Amino acid sequence: MARPAAPAVTIRRWTSGKWAEAPDAVVTEEPLQLLLDGEKLAVVMRTPGQDVELALGLLFAEGIIRSIADVTKLRVSAEADETEKAIRVERVFVESNQVDIVLASKARRKPERSMLASSACGVCGAQVIEDLRRDLAPLTAGDLIDPAILPGLVDKLRQGQGVFERTGGLHAAGLFDHGGQLVHLREDVGRHNAVDKVVGRLLLDGKLPASAHLLVVSGRAGYEIVQKSITAGIPLLAAVGAPSSLAVALGREFNQTLVGFLRGDRFNVYSGAGRLLR
Amino acid sequence: MARPAAPAVTIRRWTSGKWAEAPDAVVTEEPLQLLLDGEKLAVVMRTPGQDVELALGLLFAEGIIRSIADVTKLRVSAEADETEKAIRVERVFVESNQVDIVLASKARRKPERSMLASSACGVCGAQVIEDLRRDLAPLTAGDLIDPAILPGLVDKLRQGQGVFERTGGLHAAGLFDHGGQLVHLREDVGRHNAVDKVVGRLLLDGKLPASAHLLVVSGRAGYEIVQKSITAGIPLLAAVGAPSSLAVALGREFNQTLVGFLRGDRFNVYSGAGRLLR
Repeated sequence: MARPAAPAVTIRRWTSGKWAEAPDAVVTEEPLQLLLDGEKLAVVMRTPGQDVELALGLLFAEGIIRSIADVTKLRVSAEADETEKAIRVERVFVESNQVDIVLASKARRKPERSMLASSACGVCGAQVIEDLRRDLAPLTAGDLIDPAILPGLVDKLRQGQGVFERTGGLHAAGLFDHGGQLVHLREDVGRHNAVDKVVGRLLLDGKLPASAHLLVVSGRAGYEIVQKSITAGIPLLAAVGAPSSLAVALGREFNQTLVGFLRGDRFNVYSGAGRLLR
Repeated sequence: MARPAAPAVTIRRWTSGKWAEAPDAVVTEEPLQLLLDGEKLAVVMRTPGQDVELALGLLFAEGIIRSIADVTKLRVSAEADETEKAIRVERVFVESNQVDIVLASKARRKPERSMLASSACGVCGAQVIEDLRRDLAPLTAGDLIDPAILPGLVDKLRQGQGVFERTGGLHAAGLFDHGGQLVHLREDVGRHNAVDKVVGRLLLDGKLPASAHLLVVSGRAGYEIVQKSITAGIPLLAAVGAPSSLAVALGREFNQTLVGFLRGDRFNVYSGAGRLLR
């Protein structure tokens, strides 16, 4: 079975005040356009591989299909390396990252509920970035930021979370000024919700774009988190966890400083390293 | 500022072969119905609190509003404890968990892209469960499962992930039989995608419902993961991280054994403990 690819990138690694250049691998994140009988249904961000399984599993969870007998065939990209015994898989699309599920006429149940969908509109990472370019300009260079303040921010985030950290189930997003002072802390079961709450606060306060601030998030940095923070004009995003390939591409395109694996006295810089003091 | 509530639940804790009953706290997860000028826009799963910020932040990220001047007022639930200086917040809805964003006429931009939305259709946890009841029956008791097999499954999941774990960015979902043998392992940047891929595989193989299997997921167990696994008929779901309040409520309603914090030689059981050998 094909394994998800992990693209190689060159990063700058900060360890206890020392900089080094290093190779790294990030997980692939790409949009998948799902179609139902040829009509656009949803775009989901996913790691390529087993797209047929993903499409069928999602339709099953949504109650659109109940068994494989509800599906006549699937239409996928010409380059897709997927075949199945139980169902016909036709390689038809010139563009990659598309799956069209053709329902048996007796199934043909339209989704009653709003489908899980992403805000992305393209069918490949490059196109997602191209579409965002229409709305967003690259972030300006702005002030240099002292990298030495970053390691302490995760502790400030956790202290701010306080007793609610005991559930282990709340993601946090903390907005800091360039001196490392906490400005806003928001928590939510969903990581992107915590970021939306911070940005909503800034919007209410007339503080957008937040070009003199930086954002720290618990967990990972995927497409959505990076897109939301760039839209808010935040020049540096730091995540406790890993970034995805699309997050890195977005950071590089829009000149955002993207920091990952901010843990203990070290972190990795995936884009916009020039904004950090050397 | 109001802090997110953490409901108390009574759980069963397993530590190195010994059972104990214990109090625990879980993070609240509830659906929020977003409306735009009175029309339903999306349902998002979130932790209640700062709903005005969340709604505005999400609309800003989607490009529907550019500044607070694009919003005339917000309509929220009568019980909501939210006021803002910059915008009128009217408490009008009898039901909780709703925010209607009324746009200034010159803004009124319809979302061009499919909005981020959840598959949930209710506006409170109880209603979400009520709606699911129309489609889903509680899981049957089935065979008893030996709790002693669970601690070893996380290692098997990680070994299965192999070198790709090095990116730190891939979530995993592993389907095991009741003897603890790995049947299917799927990875994805999105936790729910990894589960969809497993369920899609079972669908292709004609193996649904998967009543003789159990599912182990990296990360947390929120509404979506539990809903997907119950829909697939999987009697036991174990997560390395924390479950949410709605995940626990769903597990209890549909008689799924929900295990959280599966780490080292211990774990918590939030629902369906009767399926585990004592």
